[in-house]
Formats: sequence, structure tokens, C-alpha cells
Amino acid sequence: MVRVMTTDIADRSAAPAATSFGVKLAEAARAQRSALCVGLDPLPERLPAGVGTGGAGAARFCTAIIDATRDLACAYKVNLGFFLAFGREGIDALDRVRAAIPASIPIILDCKVGDIDNTAAAYARGWFDAFGFDALTVNPYLGEDSVAPFLSYADKGVFILCKTSNAGSGDVQDLDIRSASGETEPLFLTIARRVAAWAERYPATIGLVVGATYPAQLAAVRDICPGHPILLPGIGAQDGDLGAAVRAGVDTNGENLLVSASRSIIYASGEADFAEAARLAAIEIRDAINRSRLAIDRMIVTPTGGPDGA
Amino acid sequence: MVRVMTTDIADRSAAPAATSFGVKLAEAARAQRSALCVGLDPLPERLPAGVGTGGAGAARFCTAIIDATRDLACAYKVNLGFFLAFGREGIDALDRVRAAIPASIPIILDCKVGDIDNTAAAYARGWFDAFGFDALTVNPYLGEDSVAPFLSYADKGVFILCKTSNAGSGDVQDLDIRSASGETEPLFLTIARRVAAWAERYPATIGLVVGATYPAQLAAVRDICPGHPILLPGIGAQDGDLGAAVRAGVDTNGENLLVSASRSIIYASGEADFAEAARLAAIEIRDAINRSRLAIDRMIVTPTGGPDGA
Repeated sequence: MVRVMTTDIADRSAAPAATSFGVKLAEAARAQRSALCVGLDPLPERLPAGVGTGGAGAARFCTAIIDATRDLACAYKVNLGFFLAFGREGIDALDRVRAAIPASIPIILDCKVGDIDNTAAAYARGWFDAFGFDALTVNPYLGEDSVAPFLSYADKGVFILCKTSNAGSGDVQDLDIRSASGETEPLFLTIARRVAAWAERYPATIGLVVGATYPAQLAAVRDICPGHPILLPGIGAQDGDLGAAVRAGVDTNGENLLVSASRSIIYASGEADFAEAARLAAIEIRDAINRSRLAIDRMIVTPTGGPDGA
Repeated sequence: MVRVMTTDIADRSAAPAATSFGVKLAEAARAQRSALCVGLDPLPERLPAGVGTGGAGAARFCTAIIDATRDLACAYKVNLGFFLAFGREGIDALDRVRAAIPASIPIILDCKVGDIDNTAAAYARGWFDAFGFDALTVNPYLGEDSVAPFLSYADKGVFILCKTSNAGSGDVQDLDIRSASGETEPLFLTIARRVAAWAERYPATIGLVVGATYPAQLAAVRDICPGHPILLPGIGAQDGDLGAAVRAGVDTNGENLLVSASRSIIYASGEADFAEAARLAAIEIRDAINRSRLAIDRMIVTPTGGPDGA
């Protein structure tokens, strides 16, 4: 049941078809032969000496990382929290970083937003229309009418938090849900089923966030959502087993997985060679991911194959 | 079990005692004889002609509302989404609005934040330290270690989303949770029990968000959390029954409830008299709340009574 925004959804669907986020992401992944999503999480105390300090330093730092990895990433992800920690100038930095990313590579704002319907519509106007991000992460706790305003954007992506990578994610996400028929399952699987149902009714590309730290749970989510993009944080600094997570997370074509790595790339060196070190770390992770992807050999042989090929 | 930030928590607790958010809120509520929390949610299309447009117009609009209601509110609440919809200049407006609020009145940032532990710490630095807000709303979906960085601030307030005011809140929040002993309850009550447990272990003032649109559920939450502040959106434009909600939500002293009203106050008039109209609407709602508070007669007779009296 679509509760809200029905008119808006119809209007948007009637507009000239823009490239969907799903197509843009698939094209970038194939063109770059990469499932690596580079996470840009600047920390004040870890900015290399040469880039300066504050929000301006964070912007220069992230821009240098982008320049060093632009042929290696299928997407970039910026986390709002790390920019807000710089205060107002962090928002200026966020905007400059977004503008520095090539138009062919999707940029995901990791803001884990979730609010009631009219407020969610305001967030969508801000992050999609005013700031120009391609996709957002969204928290499902407030229910379908809180997610619907984001899902009404046919050209945008929405990654619903499902099973997050942190040690305490089970506190709520693993709670045992009893269905009307008396069967039980953990909450995150119920959320995955909602995502599959929403995808039938809304025009946006709908994905999920599942932590690499939980490969068995990831496999269960992939079973419920066989064709949805999955954003996978938690490798590297968070110590998830990369190979197990990639094998559990890819679709049957070895695709539709965005393996997000941040600290292990952007802080590979804290010295003047930080960008070069980031590039080498990104190549290493990109290649490790590709070795674990089932269908990767076929993809490397025919990178321009298929109707969506670049 | 406290999973993270234990050192930080100990350090903060050892610092010279600052006034807690709970005390600041109680003092403001008693001094103003009010449980009204004025919500400042500027919409581009509803700014009165005289204040201008864009972020600067939003800031002037909100500042005029603050000047007209500063003796009527126990707190102000700003919702991040409505400021972000103005783009970068919306963040400047947010900062100016925060600075315009008298120091004796708490200001709550309604940002419904929730992220993994190190990111949550970055958000806390941003919203508490860099921007200077007194309290935040926090989404519990990511579990205790995601909430802990906020709860480590002894002088701050954290309102955990429990049962939100929107029509679709039951999609997730009413899901039937089965406990280890086989009993079931809706998810929002499980969250309320977590809040009660966290309050025993963390120094921040912990409150809850419960919508006025669900008075029976509100009463059940109040039973589990008899002494916690409850932030109550959903009256006025969202059409909750004010009297029923206030009676269900106050503590046994008729206190610890923040009745949030936004659109019904700030858009009481769309003309040049908008601030005066907002003042009249705020008085009307403040008085209606007070008539429903059980112990209000005693409070009005002895507004300076009690150890925390202003």
C-alpha cells in the first residue's frame, strides 16, 4: 500500500526517463571493472600535514584521494558525520568533494536518514535536489511512509539499512520477529522482505546496507533480494573477511555489490605520499574483490558486453 | 554491557559537573510554566513576504518566531531536514537560529541520527561540540554501541526514537518481538526497556520520542520509563488529541513532557503579522497543555518551589 506521495510518484514517472541509479552504477562497475566503493571519511587528527586543517583541509585531502582513485572505484561514499565534525565549514567541504567526483561515477551520501513523511520530503529536496547526491542511506525504523519520499525519485538510489557492520547491530536488528502465522525470523530479514516489496512499487533503485562482518546474514539477505545492489561496509579497518563477504554478497552474475572501504585506503599513509599510498591500497582491494567475484573472468573478457555495457 | 567509549565516559564523568540537560529542561519548564516545545521547521514556500527567501529568509523567519515566543517555550526544536532543503545556506541558517535562542532555554536538534560507533562519535563532536546543541534525537536501529557516544555527554540530552507520530510508524515499530521467555511485545516497548536500562549506565539525560497520535502506546511507554523526558510531536497539524496525549505522557508530577508544535504555531499567519500570530497560537497551546497536566495547579501556585526551582 502506497500511503503518501502518490501524485508525486506519478508525476516523476511521467517525466522524461533519466538514467536510473542502478544503470549508472552497473555502467561504472563494468567500465572500471571494479566493485570497490571508496569511502571518504576525513578525520581532523589524521589529515596529512600538507593539506591543511579544518574543513578546507578535509576537502583538499578528499579531492586528492579522488584524483588518485578515479579509475579504480565503481562509486564513492561520503559519510555526513565526518564532515559535520568540522562544523559549518564541513558542509562546504562536503559540497566541494561531491563536485570533485567524475559525473560517470555515482556518489552515495551515507547519512542514514529517516524521518516522517513531510520531513523526509525536505531531506530528499536537500540531499538529492540541492546538494546533488546520487544515492542516500536510509534508516527503515520509521516505516514505509518515511522511506517513500526518497523512493519516488526514479533517477536516484536508496540503500536501506538492513544488518549493519557494528558489533552491537544485533541489539535491535537480530530481535526475533513473530509473523502473523506464528513463525519467527530476525528483524533484519523482515526489513529485507520489505525492501523487496517496495522495489515493486517505487521507481527509485532500492538497495540494502549489510556489514561484511556478518557473511551468513548477508547470504540470507541476498536470497531474499537477489537483484538489489548491496552496499557492504566493514572490510579492512573493521576486519570482516573480504572473500567470504564478497562470495555471500554478489548476485548470480558476480555483480550488484559495492564493497566499501575507507580507512584502509585513505589512511594507508599519513605522510606526503598519502594519495599514492591510497591508490596502491585501492588497487589491492579492488583486485582482491575481483578474485572473489564468481563471474569476474567473463566480465574482464567482455567489459562492454550486455545492453548496459559502457 | 557497555561496549565502547568506556574511557571517554569515565573521563567525562570525572570532569567538573556541568548542569545536566534534564535539570536545564526542568528549570526552563518551571520558570516558563510551560511544557510547550516550539518546533522551527521553515519551508521555502511558506516564508512570509517580509523576511526574504532562501536560507537567510529562513533564519530571519525563525529568529522572529523565537523573539515572539521566548517567554512561552520550555524548549525549541529545529529539524535538520527543513534547513538542509535550503542547501548549504540552510546550515548557516541553522547555526544562526541556534545562536538566537536564549541560553536558559534548551535547544533540541531533531536529526534522528544513528550510525556505527566511530561515526556516531563524529556526529556527537559535530552537533554537540561544534554546533552547540543541547540535545539530539537518535534512531536506535543500530543498537547500543551506536547510541553510546551520544550518551557519554553528561551535560547533553538524547531522545531515542520509540514510537513515532507518522501513520506508518507501526510498519516496523509495532512488529511483534518474541523474548527469550517466549512472551511477545511490540518493538517500541522493547526499545523503551532499553532506554530505561541505558539510563542506569550512561551520564547523559535520556529521553524518548513518542507521537501524540498514539496515546495508548504513550501510556505504555510512560509506565516503563516513569522518570524520563518524553518529546511528543504530532499535535496540531498532525491532529493528535492534545488532552489525551498530555494526560498519558506526563510523569506523576505533571512534568517531563515536551509537547512539540511547529506548523500550528509558526504558520498561524502567512502575512506580516506572522510573529504576533505565532505568539497567540503558542499561548493557546501552552495553556491547553497546562490545563491537561495533572499537577499544574500546584506548579502555578509555587513556580519557584522545589530544589530545582528557578
